[in-house]
Amino acid sequence: MISANDIRQSHERIKEHIHDTPLLNSESINALAGCEITFKCENFQKVGAFKIRGAINAIKCLSKNELKNGVVTHSSGNHAQAIAKAAKLMNTVAYIVMPENAPKVKVNAVQSYGGKITFCTPTLEARESSMKHLQKKTSAVFISPYDHPDIISGQATAAKEMLEKIPLNVILAPVGGGGLLAGTALASKYFGNDIDVIGAEPSGADDAYRSLKEGKRITKQTPNTIADGLLTTLGELNYSIIKDNVNEILTVEDYDILNAMRLIWERLKIIVEPSCAVPLAAVLCNKEQFKGKKIGIILSGGNVDLDPFFNDFL
Amino acid sequence: MISANDIRQSHERIKEHIHDTPLLNSESINALAGCEITFKCENFQKVGAFKIRGAINAIKCLSKNELKNGVVTHSSGNHAQAIAKAAKLMNTVAYIVMPENAPKVKVNAVQSYGGKITFCTPTLEARESSMKHLQKKTSAVFISPYDHPDIISGQATAAKEMLEKIPLNVILAPVGGGGLLAGTALASKYFGNDIDVIGAEPSGADDAYRSLKEGKRITKQTPNTIADGLLTTLGELNYSIIKDNVNEILTVEDYDILNAMRLIWERLKIIVEPSCAVPLAAVLCNKEQFKGKKIGIILSGGNVDLDPFFNDFL
Repeated sequence: MISANDIRQSHERIKEHIHDTPLLNSESINALAGCEITFKCENFQKVGAFKIRGAINAIKCLSKNELKNGVVTHSSGNHAQAIAKAAKLMNTVAYIVMPENAPKVKVNAVQSYGGKITFCTPTLEARESSMKHLQKKTSAVFISPYDHPDIISGQATAAKEMLEKIPLNVILAPVGGGGLLAGTALASKYFGNDIDVIGAEPSGADDAYRSLKEGKRITKQTPNTIADGLLTTLGELNYSIIKDNVNEILTVEDYDILNAMRLIWERLKIIVEPSCAVPLAAVLCNKEQFKGKKIGIILSGGNVDLDPFFNDFL
Repeated sequence: MISANDIRQSHERIKEHIHDTPLLNSESINALAGCEITFKCENFQKVGAFKIRGAINAIKCLSKNELKNGVVTHSSGNHAQAIAKAAKLMNTVAYIVMPENAPKVKVNAVQSYGGKITFCTPTLEARESSMKHLQKKTSAVFISPYDHPDIISGQATAAKEMLEKIPLNVILAPVGGGGLLAGTALASKYFGNDIDVIGAEPSGADDAYRSLKEGKRITKQTPNTIADGLLTTLGELNYSIIKDNVNEILTVEDYDILNAMRLIWERLKIIVEPSCAVPLAAVLCNKEQFKGKKIGIILSGGNVDLDPFFNDFL
């Protein structure tokens, strides 16, 4: 089990390499939502997402011997960038399996950090089999995007930073593989004061919602959502932490995710990716539940392909 | 003439109503530009732009008697929102003449602050004649978007805040009517330490560049640029301040403005409008001139119509 001390040590380990990202709020969003929302801006984090926290933590926990053949992982994007950047920091090689439909901006970024990419078809099976093949070939150490105690412990530091600054009644994080949500739940348990932890998930990739409802982890799904960072299926360790420490998973439709994303762009004047907007969408779709409360939302990342906007301009 | 004390007093007058906006920077933009750029994020300002500074200052300088019939102005957008919001704060009415091609997001915002809009054709002549007609009808006090000492003194507070926090070799601001640039120049003279002040202007609306070059204010132009906040022509008071206190005006093409805007969106993860990106475009197009220097850029605003991006998503 991941302890409070594990998370504290992870934070010490990664502190010099990451930003203590700012907290933002918007009067107009609060008025619209009927509660007091504080956003933890991990879109301003190094590599543009919280994923760098877990990646650096996990790689820094490896021995010199383990690092000598590099690291390998699969990711739809932000974990890939994070592992590539963290590997560069630790002077080792990162082999990355990415789905062929990953946003161009994320592919470019991985390459800019020196990550070596292998593309595969966009299913979990294809990702895992490509990854195993690559691992065998290179003898690199596999670092799961989410199902890994050092990753979860690293992701927990985002909520820890937030809770050290402001009191909250509820904290929300999006859920894909469950690294951020599991970490947020543990940080809230150890460093918060009786906080409800809620996961927010797209209806088109609702395996965490169904897993909690059915009391067993669902391992197969065919996800279909605009939230491209949440296509992955809940991890094993993640499920075991989430079922014990998360109050509830709320699901939202893509239409509501896009509206929430636009609201963040327009009112906060910051760029967030669709996955990031899922928790705000969950609050706006369940206003009664959150009325008058102090809500914390972890904005997970800001890596979005801007071609549609800028092509229209040119 | 606007004194250091005028600017100090303006700052005291508006302080409680505005944000002391954050300073941001990006390692990757610095690497690309070959200098050390700090961005003053007025896109995070109330109403999404620096214009609220001048608007509140100007309205707070009016007497009760002057305020009783309201205020009137013309604006392509951000000044309109600022005057509407400031008038609301001071419990008076704002009559606003806006060009009929003003971005929808700006029109909606003016209406949300209770401003009363009259639309006109998008030329300076039409704006001024509609405004005079409205002023006659309502007896409201005219507040120029830029050619007004209290406006200039208010806009100067953005550079003042920046200079009180960090040392700079050069400061850049975009120039349309010249309120921000004139204010920035005066703030740099009074509160900076031997700083070069540079205006950045779209080639398609280069009246300030030509005015300085020809030694007399050009009063007519047919602007054509994507930087919709900079379509206005340099004001009289603005010209007289700028010619004495600005080192140079650099002009840039729309293509370079869009590239700089995209860079700010992608690397800083913040929303800025095209006008905002003109100074960064000027730096990137003149790298030799700025090599190794400490550069301050005032990001003027973040009110951009997001329809093109979100329509493509839906």
